[in-house]
Order: sequence, then C-alpha cells, then structure tokens
Amino acid sequence: MTQLAHTALGELTTPALLLDSTVLERNCEAMAQRAAHHGVALRPHLKTSKSAEVARLATRGHSGAITVSTLAEVDYFARHGFLDLTYAVGISAGKIDALHRIQLAHAARVTLLADRVEAVRAAAARARAIGATFRLLIEVDTGGGRGGVAPDDEEALLAIAAEVQRSGSLTLAGVLTHAGHSYHAEGLDAIRAIAETERAGAVQAAGRLRAAGFTVDTVSVGATPTAVCAERLDGVTEMRPGVYTFFDLDQAARGICEIEDIALSVLATVIGHNPRSRRVLIDAGGLALSKDESAAEFRDGLGFGLICKADGTTPLAGLRVAELHQEHGLIACDGDSDGAAQAMFDALPVGSRVRILPHHACMTAAPYDRYHVVRGTGASVYAVWGKAHGWHAAGPGA
Amino acid sequence: MTQLAHTALGELTTPALLLDSTVLERNCEAMAQRAAHHGVALRPHLKTSKSAEVARLATRGHSGAITVSTLAEVDYFARHGFLDLTYAVGISAGKIDALHRIQLAHAARVTLLADRVEAVRAAAARARAIGATFRLLIEVDTGGGRGGVAPDDEEALLAIAAEVQRSGSLTLAGVLTHAGHSYHAEGLDAIRAIAETERAGAVQAAGRLRAAGFTVDTVSVGATPTAVCAERLDGVTEMRPGVYTFFDLDQAARGICEIEDIALSVLATVIGHNPRSRRVLIDAGGLALSKDESAAEFRDGLGFGLICKADGTTPLAGLRVAELHQEHGLIACDGDSDGAAQAMFDALPVGSRVRILPHHACMTAAPYDRYHVVRGTGASVYAVWGKAHGWHAAGPGA
Repeated sequence: MTQLAHTALGELTTPALLLDSTVLERNCEAMAQRAAHHGVALRPHLKTSKSAEVARLATRGHSGAITVSTLAEVDYFARHGFLDLTYAVGISAGKIDALHRIQLAHAARVTLLADRVEAVRAAAARARAIGATFRLLIEVDTGGGRGGVAPDDEEALLAIAAEVQRSGSLTLAGVLTHAGHSYHAEGLDAIRAIAETERAGAVQAAGRLRAAGFTVDTVSVGATPTAVCAERLDGVTEMRPGVYTFFDLDQAARGICEIEDIALSVLATVIGHNPRSRRVLIDAGGLALSKDESAAEFRDGLGFGLICKADGTTPLAGLRVAELHQEHGLIACDGDSDGAAQAMFDALPVGSRVRILPHHACMTAAPYDRYHVVRGTGASVYAVWGKAHGWHAAGPGA
Repeated sequence: MTQLAHTALGELTTPALLLDSTVLERNCEAMAQRAAHHGVALRPHLKTSKSAEVARLATRGHSGAITVSTLAEVDYFARHGFLDLTYAVGISAGKIDALHRIQLAHAARVTLLADRVEAVRAAAARARAIGATFRLLIEVDTGGGRGGVAPDDEEALLAIAAEVQRSGSLTLAGVLTHAGHSYHAEGLDAIRAIAETERAGAVQAAGRLRAAGFTVDTVSVGATPTAVCAERLDGVTEMRPGVYTFFDLDQAARGICEIEDIALSVLATVIGHNPRSRRVLIDAGGLALSKDESAAEFRDGLGFGLICKADGTTPLAGLRVAELHQEHGLIACDGDSDGAAQAMFDALPVGSRVRILPHHACMTAAPYDRYHVVRGTGASVYAVWGKAHGWHAAGPGA
C-alpha cells in the first residue's frame, strides 16, 4: 500500500478506480455480523477486489482464511500473508506445480476443488510426482449448472472421495457449492429459496460422505445474494460471498443492497461534446467500465453504469452511458432535442468529472492495478492500494 | 521480451494469451503494402496489442511513428524507443503533466487531439504553466458521431486552430478522423463508401484550414475496415488502423479478413463436465475472453468466441462458449440431448485444451500482461512478449 498525502480528486489522472473505504468497511462489518449470526465462518471471496487491504478488512476479527479464483490471486495473497486459501475453480493438473511453489515459498495452505474423478486423478498424480500435498473440496451443484456433482449423486461423491483418499497426495476437506444462479433470481423470496436449496444440498452431500465413513470438516456455501438472504445455515461451516465488499448496480437492481452501499466507482473526465450526435464524451470506455450490463436484467435505463457527481453517489438524472468504445464512453440524455443536449453540455462542461457506478464490480475492477481510496463524499484520495490482476503467478516459469 | 527455450503448449498454465507471429507478420506486411500502394504513411494504432514487439513488426521499414490511446501506452512505448506518438483520445488538462514528464524523460514527441476550443485552452494553459510544448491535431467527425467537429464547420475548425496558434505551448499539426462506424457497416461496398467519406472529410477540413492560412502537415484517417477497403487516399498523409495486426471474429464476420488471418487466441483447459446442464467447463471466463460479442451483429451462433483445436484455428464444429462467469467459460453443443452432450464430453475430456478465437481482439488482449508467441500451428511457444496494461504511467505521481 502506498499512503499518500491527501490528493484532490481533481488531480487524479483518469480513468481512475475509486474505492470508498467508509462504505467498504460498513459492508465488511455487516457481512461479518451475518456470518456470526448464523454461526459460520466467513471466508470472503477476494476475486472481486484482488486487494490485500480489502482482504484485511474483510477478514478483520476472523481467521484470515480467504477464497480466490486465479493463480495470480493465490500468489499475490500468499505474498501478502494470507496463508489459508481456497482456490475455488476446478483444478487441472497443469496448475499443480505453481501452487506447490507458492505453498512452499510462503508456508501457505491451498485447498483445491474438483468434481470429476479424472481431474482428481490427474492433479493427484502430478502432486505425487513433485512431492506436493493439498486439501481438496468436492464441488456440489445445487442448481447453478456450472461445476459440481448433484448433491444426491452418492455414486459420484463416493467415487471422488475414494480417489482422493487413495491418492497419497490429497486430503479430503469437505464439500463446496456456489449458488451462482441466485444472481438471476427475481425477488428476495426467490433468493431465499435458492439459499435454502444451496444449504440443504451442501449438507446433504456432506451427510452422504460422512455416512460412508469419510471425514467432512468443511461444508462451504456462498454467493452474495444467498449470503445476504439466507434464513438459516444449519450444518454449514463457512460462507464465501465476494461482491458484497464493493456491491454494484447488479446487486442493487435485485434489492440485495442500496445504491449508497456501492463502494466502487470509476472517475472519468469529460473530454468532448458532440452536438450532432448529442453525446458527451468521457475518457472511460469499454475497458475502464467493462461492457458488463448485468443489472439490465432487472432494471432498465442504466446504460453502461450510473453517472453520478464526481464527489459521491448522487445520480445525475436523465443521463446514461449509451455507448462504449475502447477508451471512450459516450453519454446521452433523455429527450431527443438540441435543447436537452445543450442542457447536458452545460451540466458537464469539457474538463469536468463524473463518477460512474458499475454494473458488476468484479468485472470493472479486474483490469486496474490500483485503487484510489476515498472516505465518504470527501473530495480527496487518502491512500493508493495495490492489487493483483491478470492470471500469472510471479514465480519462476509462470 | 523474454526468449524462452521452446515450451510445449501443454505446459503453459491457462488461461494464456497466444499470438501466432506468422499470421501477425503477414497481417503487418499486407497493411504496409496497402499504405505504400496509396502513398500514405502507416501510423499503426497499438491500442490493440499494447506490445513493443508488435510495434516493431507493425512499423518495420517505416518511421516508427505509432498511435496510442492511454497514458500507460504513451509511457510504455516511449520507454521502448517509440518516440513519435499520437495520443488519439481527446486531451484533458489533467493529463498534460504526465505527458510532459514522458516527453522529457525520453526525448519523445507526443501529438495531442482536441475538438473543442475549451479543451485546447485548458491543455495549453497547463502546458504553459509547466513549460511544456505539444503538437495538436484537430479531430474531425466524418460520420462516427464520437469525437470531432464536422468537416464543413469552418467556424469551429478555424476557432480551434486560432486557439492553438495563440497558445504559445501548442503547434497545429493537422487533422485526424476515425471512421469508427465502419465497424457497423454491412458489406464491403458500404465500407468502401465510408472510407471515401472519411477521406473526403479529412481532406475537406484540411483544405478549409489551409485556405485560412494555417499549415496542415498531417491528414490522418484510419480504422481497419476503411484501411482495408479504401479505393483511394488522395490528400491523406497517414492511416492509423490497429486491429488488423491481430484481426478477430468481428472483422472476419464482415469480410475484412478470413478466420485464418486471426493471430490472437486464448488457450484454455477443460476443468469439468456437467452432464445435468450439458456443459463443458473451461478455465477462461468473462475476464480471460471478454464479454464482447461484437461479431454477433453480423454472424449468428458464435457464442463468446470460436472454439478451435489447441494447436491451431480449426474450429470444433457444433460447439459454442454459451455462458461466461468471471473465471469459468461454459461450452454447449448443438443438439439438446444426452447423446450430443456425451459426444462433446468425449471430444473434450477433462484436462484437454482448446484455443478460442476472440470477437474483439482489443478487448480480449487488454487485461493480460504478456503474449505467449507461437508460429503457425506448431505446438510450442518460442517467446514471451510483455505488454502494457491498465491506465497509469509508471512515472512519479502517476
């Protein structure tokens, strides 16, 4: 982390990724309380922020255990002292060497994920060949249709567990599920129902394994919508939400958070007016904002992000990011007239700045290499936080 | 650049960004010949690759002059010896200090872009305050509706030129236009017409400035579709295409290139099979592939990229990347049956690899920090090329 003398927002070069640490801390505290209320551990997913500073806030008062989604994140967080890492993407043998190097270099513990006997067999063989050992979770599909075995597929569950047990290089840690389809559910009742299916499926799979004599320490669930909405988590040992740290328009559009809970935004500068196309040009395009429009599934008229005043999250009514080119964003206004366009040009003079709230915080934050950290609606940056990006671990041969 | 002993594709950790240098060199050579045929300079846009190695190939036999779109690119390319840089995004005063530092550190020459008197005035004032000087191009809108003054808007053109002339810190270099709307034109005839409008508009704007006594050295046009299709470029001095270096599905879908001309691909590993949702899981998701679907405007059924065998560009018929999560891609097959799904699982066993051709090479390449370079359909990587990414210059205060 680089601590700065306070820098005015007006002095930042744009596009810049702003993070409101007041909101971030509030979001982290609320989720920690939810986990405590349910009596489960919180193992936050750091794929959203890829930041050690965020990880410290998200694990405050907790074990420091985290969830990650890339080798680059495993490497980055291990280097920053986070040594209990669940790598929550199905393992392939080609990643074993790099993970072993990271475990050795930092005395870290990486827990793997798999849902196929073949994947376990290949990873275990590679681990044996280089003298590596890992814990492994069996992925359970509780309705997302992505990775995982069905919770009641006893044959598959036991076959994977047996393969782990006989591997000599892997140890069974338990089961993991991710109700990703909760992102597409409409209404909190529907999400509550998915949370219960997620819980019950994970617990059912754990029960089948235990009944067959396997030790299951970890029963892991989690996605931000289900973590926020779950009514009970009996039988679960940990939750792994991620985007709650920052929240975004996608979560706000389905009622999981309010606009005021969004901690992440992109600061952009007005670089032109085009009276013929009635567009204001800004220097944040498809890379700086991402082209993700996920909130559009539940809320119309958001364009590619919610345009706010530069010093906070007050939306500028009647404006939307209508078009994105690589490094240009084009803002349009409601009302198809020269008068409306002129009012927009007057409100956003060339050289002025806006803050744009993202549809999907994970996608927007990913390509940046740092956060400019602000507190509340203050107009100055008090810290710069580094972050991981890309896919490659820094180690040899990566 | 890191030169490697030849590494087998099978040993790369995935997702990895592959670049076929045989195709890249052919694409560069073809565009150099087009520029020579028209008697114009080629100032390639490096926003696509952000790579010094690619820039060397794209400027082979030429001046070394390039076009870029971010401060990070200006900084990166100046550090790699590319000293004549057009920063082709409307300038704002907040970027002047960083550009000045880069000019001084490397004896580089950065040419700016503007289309509003206010933008010129603010940039010029900041430049004067710190003793900086820059060349500046006036942006002309020849139909794209993004930046630029209308080619026949003599009042605006002359006002900007006069503001530049009286600035004391800026020098008028000429005019620049980008026919970005050629990306959305259907058919080569339509693109040819846009190329002629682009040419004529730039030449017209230059003529109005010259008639008023201003010196106009540079008349710059360029987008890959118009650069490929232009029938004549009389009066133009340079072209600035970019994506032609890599090409992509978006260009292929409108007939600007063939699939075989696509030099960029993403190597991914099969990490799971889900027989219930009939999906193959790969470790390349919305970040590794980008969610860009631009080719869908002209060609159906591509999903989020064209799935090919790992060793080349032979498409695997009947498969598509149907869904993207942050670090997961989900491949579906034609035919809604368990038998079709089983055939897909047999063709793509867990641990096997695929190569995916991107819709939009600029969006896909951007977040990576390196290219793994291959030659033709060979199964080994012979070099790793670094690249710029993100938005921040490496210099102080960036």
